[in-house]
Amino acid sequence: METTRKIAVIGGGSWATALVKILVTNLPKVGWWMRNEDAVAHIKKYKKNPRYLQSVEFDTDKIDVTTDIVRVIEEAEILIIATPSAFLNDLFEPIDKSIFKGKYVFSAVKGIVPEYNAIPARFIHKTFDIPYDDIGIICGPCHAEEVALERLSYLTLACSNEELAEEMAEIMASRFIKTTVSDDLFGTELSAVLKNVYALASGICAGLGYGDNFQAVLISNAIQEIENFIDEVSPIHRDVKTSAYLGDLLVTSYSKFSRNRTFGFMIGKGYSVKTAQLEMDMIAEGYYATKSVMEINKKFQVEMPIVEAVYNIIYEKIAPVIEMRILTDKLS
Amino acid sequence: METTRKIAVIGGGSWATALVKILVTNLPKVGWWMRNEDAVAHIKKYKKNPRYLQSVEFDTDKIDVTTDIVRVIEEAEILIIATPSAFLNDLFEPIDKSIFKGKYVFSAVKGIVPEYNAIPARFIHKTFDIPYDDIGIICGPCHAEEVALERLSYLTLACSNEELAEEMAEIMASRFIKTTVSDDLFGTELSAVLKNVYALASGICAGLGYGDNFQAVLISNAIQEIENFIDEVSPIHRDVKTSAYLGDLLVTSYSKFSRNRTFGFMIGKGYSVKTAQLEMDMIAEGYYATKSVMEINKKFQVEMPIVEAVYNIIYEKIAPVIEMRILTDKLS
Repeated sequence: METTRKIAVIGGGSWATALVKILVTNLPKVGWWMRNEDAVAHIKKYKKNPRYLQSVEFDTDKIDVTTDIVRVIEEAEILIIATPSAFLNDLFEPIDKSIFKGKYVFSAVKGIVPEYNAIPARFIHKTFDIPYDDIGIICGPCHAEEVALERLSYLTLACSNEELAEEMAEIMASRFIKTTVSDDLFGTELSAVLKNVYALASGICAGLGYGDNFQAVLISNAIQEIENFIDEVSPIHRDVKTSAYLGDLLVTSYSKFSRNRTFGFMIGKGYSVKTAQLEMDMIAEGYYATKSVMEINKKFQVEMPIVEAVYNIIYEKIAPVIEMRILTDKLS
Repeated sequence: METTRKIAVIGGGSWATALVKILVTNLPKVGWWMRNEDAVAHIKKYKKNPRYLQSVEFDTDKIDVTTDIVRVIEEAEILIIATPSAFLNDLFEPIDKSIFKGKYVFSAVKGIVPEYNAIPARFIHKTFDIPYDDIGIICGPCHAEEVALERLSYLTLACSNEELAEEMAEIMASRFIKTTVSDDLFGTELSAVLKNVYALASGICAGLGYGDNFQAVLISNAIQEIENFIDEVSPIHRDVKTSAYLGDLLVTSYSKFSRNRTFGFMIGKGYSVKTAQLEMDMIAEGYYATKSVMEINKKFQVEMPIVEAVYNIIYEKIAPVIEMRILTDKLS
């Protein structure tokens, strides 16, 4: 859909880069903030993000890439936040919140803001004073690397304001992106957060030598844990077998592109958490998510044996081989 | 569980071989029929099935392997049938049905008997005159190849007779096999049949170059098709997110061991159906299942766009690239 909406992406990582690529298909100009000055200069000169999705070449007439976050926010009608969840609080803390007035904000974070144990939608609502109706989630089974390759991918736009969801769905749809809408703001983001924990579990088990038969059982149990948890936290009608939930879990747990799975695999192979983090260039969201979900679940007390096993391995230093053997008796 | 139950496996393929391996863990002796005389002689002499799972060495004191199907049936209290579905009718046609009287029969076929468009449970019931209460299904996400490697796997024993299901579950449980029970005789087998069609779809799409993002969407839609179909055909309460349904779908669609996925992959790469069948040494159950499911669905009229796409490609010779592009618009 051709549109004159002013949209900006906040973030310089691979998912942010993929989102800009998706947006420039239908928009005459897209705002783009990233922290790194060298990266901005590189993009302006060589048309490519030097650190992520280097195969993607941008038409620099169609992007307004800058390190000036205030200007980017001020000039946009719709903001898409795509930074790691652990950076969100520090990034927006110094900014005068009044500039967010009247903006629509979509989270593409798929993480939990650790300082608040809150999903980004809640953080955005509380910190920027934006009504929930003006906040949305971009989710779906979508590795940035495949967007770069223009491989057909499906996104779900979740927002309680159906019109806004529909508009964003049209803006983001293209030859290689199909979009669908949902009203499940909390459930889709919580599911997107949880799937990273299960991808860690999947990686750990693969590292320990468990096979495909077991992985299938693990993931079947994982989607049930997701359903039990989000139904308790946000009890609305939803079908977790749809792409935004199950699809996202599958792509993260089974794909070779998944950083969370890779991180888990290293843990399963015997790397310490610290070494695995050093070896990896990217943040594994599941690391923070595991702790936050355990915190949130103190209130809800949902049975989550897989999340607990990952927590015990990553934070309590229980040997993966022992913890996962205990877990196998809790699955079916 | 140590037991004196007399159990026999009918079939000489990889899944039959894996089942015998599972059974000899807890049973003093297991009956085993296969058609091929040379294979029987080879097993007796070298303790290995020459054609399937060659890494598995049998204690020949614990197996009674023979080509005499009547003796195997007569001597067993519980029969496990693990032949390809397309051979079932021809195999049992010449046998006097009275020898089945009082036997329990479990199907490990995961297919549809093409002559009847019926799942094996129904074929067994009608042909052998065995009450449904004495018929069960062995299912679950379980590649024979991983059983051979003693990788932890989960099986589901489905039977309307709960006691029988429980007994089989105990007999088959071991260090590397965990078992669970279900009362969903029809649903588990139909799901096991359908998953082979979706594995074909998954392989076709992989062959065409669709990526992980799309596969996740395809499988999310597939499990919904499975639920819609089996809820219509056999309307009892079930959760298709459990291992017997979703797990089985996942292992077949994602695993490199899956012959159906491989068959589909060759079709997606441009092989004709005939060439792909010649190239492969094993029967791809999904080939027959696709046609049978379409036949069965004439009565139930469930919307099954993925099954229809596979049917159009395999039986109507529609080009995979066109048929799958049409399908992408029907998924979400």
